[in-house]
Amino acid sequence: MRKSFASDNYAGVDQAIMRAIIEANSNDVPAYGNDQYTARAVEVFKEHFGQDVDVYFVFTGTAANVLGLQTFIQSHQVIICPETAHINTDECGAIEKFLGSKLLAVPTRDGKLTIDDIKPLLTSLGDQHRAQPKLISITQSTELGTIYSVEEIKQIVDFAHQYNMFVHVDGARLANAAAALDLPLRSFTTDLGVDLITFGGTKNGMMMGEAVIFANKKISNDFKFIRKQGMQLGSKMRFISAQFIELLSNNRWFDNAKHANKMAQLLAQEVAKNPYIRLMYPVQANGVFVKIDPMYIPLLQQEYSFYVWDEVQHVVRWMTSFNTTEQDVYQFVQLINAIVKG
Amino acid sequence: MRKSFASDNYAGVDQAIMRAIIEANSNDVPAYGNDQYTARAVEVFKEHFGQDVDVYFVFTGTAANVLGLQTFIQSHQVIICPETAHINTDECGAIEKFLGSKLLAVPTRDGKLTIDDIKPLLTSLGDQHRAQPKLISITQSTELGTIYSVEEIKQIVDFAHQYNMFVHVDGARLANAAAALDLPLRSFTTDLGVDLITFGGTKNGMMMGEAVIFANKKISNDFKFIRKQGMQLGSKMRFISAQFIELLSNNRWFDNAKHANKMAQLLAQEVAKNPYIRLMYPVQANGVFVKIDPMYIPLLQQEYSFYVWDEVQHVVRWMTSFNTTEQDVYQFVQLINAIVKG
Amino acid sequence: MRKSFASDNYAGVDQAIMRAIIEANSNDVPAYGNDQYTARAVEVFKEHFGQDVDVYFVFTGTAANVLGLQTFIQSHQVIICPETAHINTDECGAIEKFLGSKLLAVPTRDGKLTIDDIKPLLTSLGDQHRAQPKLISITQSTELGTIYSVEEIKQIVDFAHQYNMFVHVDGARLANAAAALDLPLRSFTTDLGVDLITFGGTKNGMMMGEAVIFANKKISNDFKFIRKQGMQLGSKMRFISAQFIELLSNNRWFDNAKHANKMAQLLAQEVAKNPYIRLMYPVQANGVFVKIDPMYIPLLQQEYSFYVWDEVQHVVRWMTSFNTTEQDVYQFVQLINAIVKG
Amino acid sequence: MRKSFASDNYAGVDQAIMRAIIEANSNDVPAYGNDQYTARAVEVFKEHFGQDVDVYFVFTGTAANVLGLQTFIQSHQVIICPETAHINTDECGAIEKFLGSKLLAVPTRDGKLTIDDIKPLLTSLGDQHRAQPKLISITQSTELGTIYSVEEIKQIVDFAHQYNMFVHVDGARLANAAAALDLPLRSFTTDLGVDLITFGGTKNGMMMGEAVIFANKKISNDFKFIRKQGMQLGSKMRFISAQFIELLSNNRWFDNAKHANKMAQLLAQEVAKNPYIRLMYPVQANGVFVKIDPMYIPLLQQEYSFYVWDEVQHVVRWMTSFNTTEQDVYQFVQLINAIVKG
Repeated sequence: MRKSFASDNYAGVDQAIMRAIIEANSNDVPAYGNDQYTARAVEVFKEHFGQDVDVYFVFTGTAANVLGLQTFIQSHQVIICPETAHINTDECGAIEKFLGSKLLAVPTRDGKLTIDDIKPLLTSLGDQHRAQPKLISITQSTELGTIYSVEEIKQIVDFAHQYNMFVHVDGARLANAAAALDLPLRSFTTDLGVDLITFGGTKNGMMMGEAVIFANKKISNDFKFIRKQGMQLGSKMRFISAQFIELLSNNRWFDNAKHANKMAQLLAQEVAKNPYIRLMYPVQANGVFVKIDPMYIPLLQQEYSFYVWDEVQHVVRWMTSFNTTEQDVYQFVQLINAIVKG
Repeated sequence: MRKSFASDNYAGVDQAIMRAIIEANSNDVPAYGNDQYTARAVEVFKEHFGQDVDVYFVFTGTAANVLGLQTFIQSHQVIICPETAHINTDECGAIEKFLGSKLLAVPTRDGKLTIDDIKPLLTSLGDQHRAQPKLISITQSTELGTIYSVEEIKQIVDFAHQYNMFVHVDGARLANAAAALDLPLRSFTTDLGVDLITFGGTKNGMMMGEAVIFANKKISNDFKFIRKQGMQLGSKMRFISAQFIELLSNNRWFDNAKHANKMAQLLAQEVAKNPYIRLMYPVQANGVFVKIDPMYIPLLQQEYSFYVWDEVQHVVRWMTSFNTTEQDVYQFVQLINAIVKG
Repeated sequence: MRKSFASDNYAGVDQAIMRAIIEANSNDVPAYGNDQYTARAVEVFKEHFGQDVDVYFVFTGTAANVLGLQTFIQSHQVIICPETAHINTDECGAIEKFLGSKLLAVPTRDGKLTIDDIKPLLTSLGDQHRAQPKLISITQSTELGTIYSVEEIKQIVDFAHQYNMFVHVDGARLANAAAALDLPLRSFTTDLGVDLITFGGTKNGMMMGEAVIFANKKISNDFKFIRKQGMQLGSKMRFISAQFIELLSNNRWFDNAKHANKMAQLLAQEVAKNPYIRLMYPVQANGVFVKIDPMYIPLLQQEYSFYVWDEVQHVVRWMTSFNTTEQDVYQFVQLINAIVKG
Repeated sequence: MRKSFASDNYAGVDQAIMRAIIEANSNDVPAYGNDQYTARAVEVFKEHFGQDVDVYFVFTGTAANVLGLQTFIQSHQVIICPETAHINTDECGAIEKFLGSKLLAVPTRDGKLTIDDIKPLLTSLGDQHRAQPKLISITQSTELGTIYSVEEIKQIVDFAHQYNMFVHVDGARLANAAAALDLPLRSFTTDLGVDLITFGGTKNGMMMGEAVIFANKKISNDFKFIRKQGMQLGSKMRFISAQFIELLSNNRWFDNAKHANKMAQLLAQEVAKNPYIRLMYPVQANGVFVKIDPMYIPLLQQEYSFYVWDEVQHVVRWMTSFNTTEQDVYQFVQLINAIVKG
């Protein structure tokens, strides 16, 4: 198969990470995370997010979001998120199932929530007939490839805490945001008071593995039970932990993300030259969203798999990853230009 | 670390399976199971369990059990299982959480359920005040290292179907049972009419990966949604599928399990010579349960990690695995005999 | 306390219904619905909705909606409803809690859903990442006091069934709709193929009591367990059933609703004369929604309790009930005109 | 229908309570508990249970138990109760459904839990694979008609608090216990540190209505949302509250319960004279459990409805209520003696 622009998880495993997996296979170690790899991986996360954080590993991004959020939210409380949030659109209702809670999904222009979006949702605080807003969930980088500035996140966190609400950052692509902002991971998360971060490994070159990061141990006290009950306690956990050690000990997480972002920039810049293609959002991370005449979509999909993001508006999504090459991009652009010309 | 007798998941990954993982890392493939590895792995399962089965992969044994069972059971229905069942004791209440259902856990002598255990639980069928028995769950091989005969399973299945109930076989160690019975996997599952089988890879040499096997597609129609909502849809699924192909295409699954069983037999036979050790159950699979004076337990645990199975009765559990060697066993026995002598 | 325009449940119990309660208190009868009152009440419902329906009584409207819907929906399925639906806004997230399901709440102009609102929500049918639309819930009369025509409901039902979806009519005020349309209850529900109707007694003069009406027994087979598990099996059920017999055997249900509607018409007609008051929706049932300068709201509320419906748009809701008199309306209008004059 | 010995809810409504209902029907009052009846009823409860308690009304005993317990328990925590507990056997799995929690149901001799029953269940505290015991639930008077002494409850409460666990008293028949012990309600509940009491009105002469009583407001802070989401917020709540005022303001609750107890004593004393009938438990409240030859059961049931408690042991349950008369008892005994004579 050709390189895909469908999703950053069509890619396989980064070679260096694969080597780390193989090396972790030497002999018997305690199961369920009581091993030295997991202890070290947790330390590595603390180096990035601060010594106070409490970190747990799970298999999927959906699990990281759902189980992390379950720790904060009771069923009569509400999570506010953008309409485009992965927890709203792409987790098959897992939040509703496992938390029993309502999501209040707010339409946005570019996948980014603002305080002005949130304020009108707070008019029924204390009304026993209404589920009560208790947490704001944002995605960084967003599902539309856009990025919140440090100041934008700070405003949301301060606003939330003022109303006794928590803040979650869905960081399935947090590395891409850090690379784009050229900032340490903590500078736009824990340093600002974000209460919960879910950090993605799979989309950045790992085989599988996501981290649930709590700002402090007060709230995460029971998370080991929540994870086990949540069917996400891996027995041979060392094989997730060893990957995170490799990803985060070196600059691999940053370099991989930066490369993916750069390939998206290149793709965006090249297709922008085609007058029949319209870029929908600023290309700030590793996703390119364009509007094209729907008659071209199946022709392109014959050669490259990718998702139609909006069936009605004819918007398609092209994702780049750590293993996308400049040549892959130019080859794709060549095909696009050969097909989309009117 | 020394070889462990704590659990068959303290072991790492079988070398051949690790090679299969590495080979699966060649280039981009579709995510979420739409890849050729997964298609092939499903075929391999059909070769073992019959062409009618419908097969799905998840990360953990708890997930396989819970999501498989969720497909059959509504919240006002009851699952009957032995008190020692993994779904009852070792999944942190996941059944109750995700199904919202009651487990009726029945005390047994040796981890095996019989029709006589079940009959008294059916006196309130149709009574609106009582949750209604709808499924019988047994484990093969059991959590106590014992094995149901083909006839014993057949009796349970026939009884269950007569009462319009389903049957689940928790097969986290189904391979060990097949090896012990020297029978094909289907001969004591699908051939008898078992409705749901959960099949374990992790405890038999895989890195992670369990299969949910439905007897037919009628009931599993919505399982793809249940799995996704259940937070168990792996994006880079090929890395589970490639392992199952390797495990099940060759006789690896059988040989690994047979070896583990043989090591347990050896261990049992050797410790049976020690008059201060009492074997609790027939050693039919890869677990050895013995009663010893509690004062020796911490001394043994200084050298080898293992679990105290029953704190009150002073029963400990020793598990063997695909990578336990005869030398490991003799070394362990030597230590046991040096310590337990009175 | 003065007559209230806050809600039709600020009113007490219709005198004739109270007499029916007292008469039902003669001697011992079987508990939990196995009594002759309940048998008779079910018959009375069949006279109104057709002989095929299956009917159950619960205490609250929220319970009727939630438990009725739970019978149709699995957690990975979606209920489509108007944003203003009671199940979305006024049940404190009970649907999400008890069904574990996502609500897709659609903005509407007047509380009424149309096929054009629904179509765009069906683009992801079969996509395992997305919860799957399975039921359309409408309210008749709506939470905004508007009423679907027979033809409008027929279109929704036909459309839903074409997509293998079910239709629920939240009939907390179904009687008001029947009175307004001057049609039998079944003509715009069961006759059109509606699958589930929840029928309100409390808002039409009962002390408490709502009915869950299934179009047929195939789907309601397990509802007696769902109701009991749903904490809504009343032990002295005769005291709900006797009320329904009285309400539905005579024309009381129709007369009460018709009167409430008429009082709303009168109120609307009178306040329409005040140039500083804007009617928001057609007054078709027993609710009047008006926009007034927010500075007058607290002044009016000093004398009469009522709800501010939309804090941002300054819309208030005035409800009439079976016991509102013309004099009550004129008195209220007099006060309104004395206060709202600029 | 003859007086029934089936259940104390086959009886109707106490005449004085019915009068209180009628009187509460005078004019419009605020809905959802914001009325003067409810305020007064809460005060009356405080007079009985102490000024610190926080009290809420719901419709059914199952709802009182489930929603009260939901306030204390997360899904990975466990409730310990006797096997005979109503929450275990007679609520159709509502605890598992709504709390998502496991019940650990302990066999007992007489329906009463002891510390020795509980201790063995605490061996896995802190083990992430096991749901964690967090609350002990006892029933007073028990489902078997027995009664805990003050000292027995004190021991359970002290033990529970030592392990950081809560204590719930299911008081569907708390009045019967108070009457039997001849003690104030608080002396064996709040005075001992019980955290949650559910208090039954229905079985003691009310039409419907149960109270959820929290020892203090710290834990009940969100209960108004839990009740609404739990589908138990009655709109015309005054009609529950007025009943409680009548029941608890006078000695009616005590006198009704004492009378029911006395009738059970009489019945027990009379049937004890019949050599073919064996009393199973001490008759301390209003239930009489006897073992009789199963061939007589249908003959008795032709005349009087009652429940077979244990199909296997041929134990039947006879309940008395506030409206059972001595004549009813003697008439029943006469029939019993006419039938059971060998």
